[in-house]
Amino acid sequence: MLLAPLAACASTTSAPPAPVAAAAANPPAGMQYLYGSGEGAALSVQAWHGLLGYVASKMKARPADSVVLSQGASLDAPTFVPCGDKPLAAVFDVDETVMLNIGYEYHDATSGKGYNAADWDAWEKTGEGAVEPVPGADHVLAALRKMGVTVIFNTNRSAANADATARAIRAAGLGEAVHGQTLYLSGDDAMGSRKDGRRATIAASYCVIAMGGDQLGDFSDLFNAGQSVPTRRAATMTLPIAGMWGNGWFVMPNPVYGSGLKGGFDDIFPMDKRWAPPAKGE
Amino acid sequence: MLLAPLAACASTTSAPPAPVAAAAANPPAGMQYLYGSGEGAALSVQAWHGLLGYVASKMKARPADSVVLSQGASLDAPTFVPCGDKPLAAVFDVDETVMLNIGYEYHDATSGKGYNAADWDAWEKTGEGAVEPVPGADHVLAALRKMGVTVIFNTNRSAANADATARAIRAAGLGEAVHGQTLYLSGDDAMGSRKDGRRATIAASYCVIAMGGDQLGDFSDLFNAGQSVPTRRAATMTLPIAGMWGNGWFVMPNPVYGSGLKGGFDDIFPMDKRWAPPAKGE
Repeated sequence: MLLAPLAACASTTSAPPAPVAAAAANPPAGMQYLYGSGEGAALSVQAWHGLLGYVASKMKARPADSVVLSQGASLDAPTFVPCGDKPLAAVFDVDETVMLNIGYEYHDATSGKGYNAADWDAWEKTGEGAVEPVPGADHVLAALRKMGVTVIFNTNRSAANADATARAIRAAGLGEAVHGQTLYLSGDDAMGSRKDGRRATIAASYCVIAMGGDQLGDFSDLFNAGQSVPTRRAATMTLPIAGMWGNGWFVMPNPVYGSGLKGGFDDIFPMDKRWAPPAKGE
Repeated sequence: MLLAPLAACASTTSAPPAPVAAAAANPPAGMQYLYGSGEGAALSVQAWHGLLGYVASKMKARPADSVVLSQGASLDAPTFVPCGDKPLAAVFDVDETVMLNIGYEYHDATSGKGYNAADWDAWEKTGEGAVEPVPGADHVLAALRKMGVTVIFNTNRSAANADATARAIRAAGLGEAVHGQTLYLSGDDAMGSRKDGRRATIAASYCVIAMGGDQLGDFSDLFNAGQSVPTRRAATMTLPIAGMWGNGWFVMPNPVYGSGLKGGFDDIFPMDKRWAPPAKGE
């Protein structure tokens, strides 16, 4: 239902504006998957369903701890900020976690310019008309608020564009965001794009019952400590951290940009898992 | 832990075989994401955790219906095969659902040849040494069997290569698969790559409590009825089907190949969600 207008577009008879000459015939595979496919939509809806079910289940007995790592915790020995009697909150990244940046990615794919800070800043300031919710996010954020859970956004968009970002969040159907209360941004502290400080600030006032993000840095800066690509992947698959996925920490798909799109052949394909077709006659 | 050997590889001092000249410096973004990233691994582990939790919860009260659509069902008005007193099973696609085809994708990325049927057939026959489980799949399939749920694979690998595919499944740590009992393949019936017939055969003997796949065709052929890309995406987000994701139907990420990687600019970017940076001075 959400995408009924989209379906209508496909059968429109008016000619669309052609992509600029340099662009490929089709959007990159990652964009096809994330912004256009049923598979990608189903994956997002599934993650949001999982989050809602988890929070509903956890609320039956008040959790002792937030899902925010405490200061000094490590990935090998994670400890969490205690909840005390603080009110419940859920903390989410914004871009490609709750909101799809359709307009910006259209520009990216058709201009062939790749990411640049000036265009992204212009997008933060003026993009509110060209966003959509991540499939499922709008419904689940509304449900969380109805259950009495405060929804807090923790994004690396700039504090200088706080008002425009709040407007974009609202335009995507994701509700209200108030800077310093339910919206935390890059520039709010001295840690730049690292989010641990902002998470600590939030967890000082709230019992954070769940977090959602498309990048590992949305859960802990410890994932971005300069590890090799394979070591970083292994860290997500090693207990006890591996037990967090779907149990307090919820990942949304993003094969379009970010810290997941790194690595050379030696990082991605282990030496003992390489293959070539047998020579003819073998 | 699973990827500790991978981490060791990254610091090896012996020179790796160089990719062939035509190949890019790095694997494509989708492969970096699916085979190398922590984000992709976390997303898979999360989906497998969701599946295990769902099955454990459903088993407390025996379900009335399988999650396999009944003949004549539509996506708008889905009906399901009744369970009766049939034993419980869970049905899974193989490639990029339970098993990562690391070796084949290395060949694909370095040869620059793209998919071709002859190389894929050779891979089915000889690839068993170069596969890995999808993160979480090995643990969860073992847990399901322990709970008394029969694990059944329904894949479009060829029936002619049944033995080699069973060996690859075993080599990936995914347990035993017996053709005609717990392994269904393309060629088992006259429907080619369409899986509804095989699903009906399985659901005639089992109460299918959950299904997992990386392609929508792993859940129903109705998603591959020639719809436009936006219509197909909308179908996954429309109730009651939207309610299945994470509740009986479990999607695994695959931004590398398949029916999710389709569509031109008009399919992926709705006309009313396009954006360009404002001209200077605006």
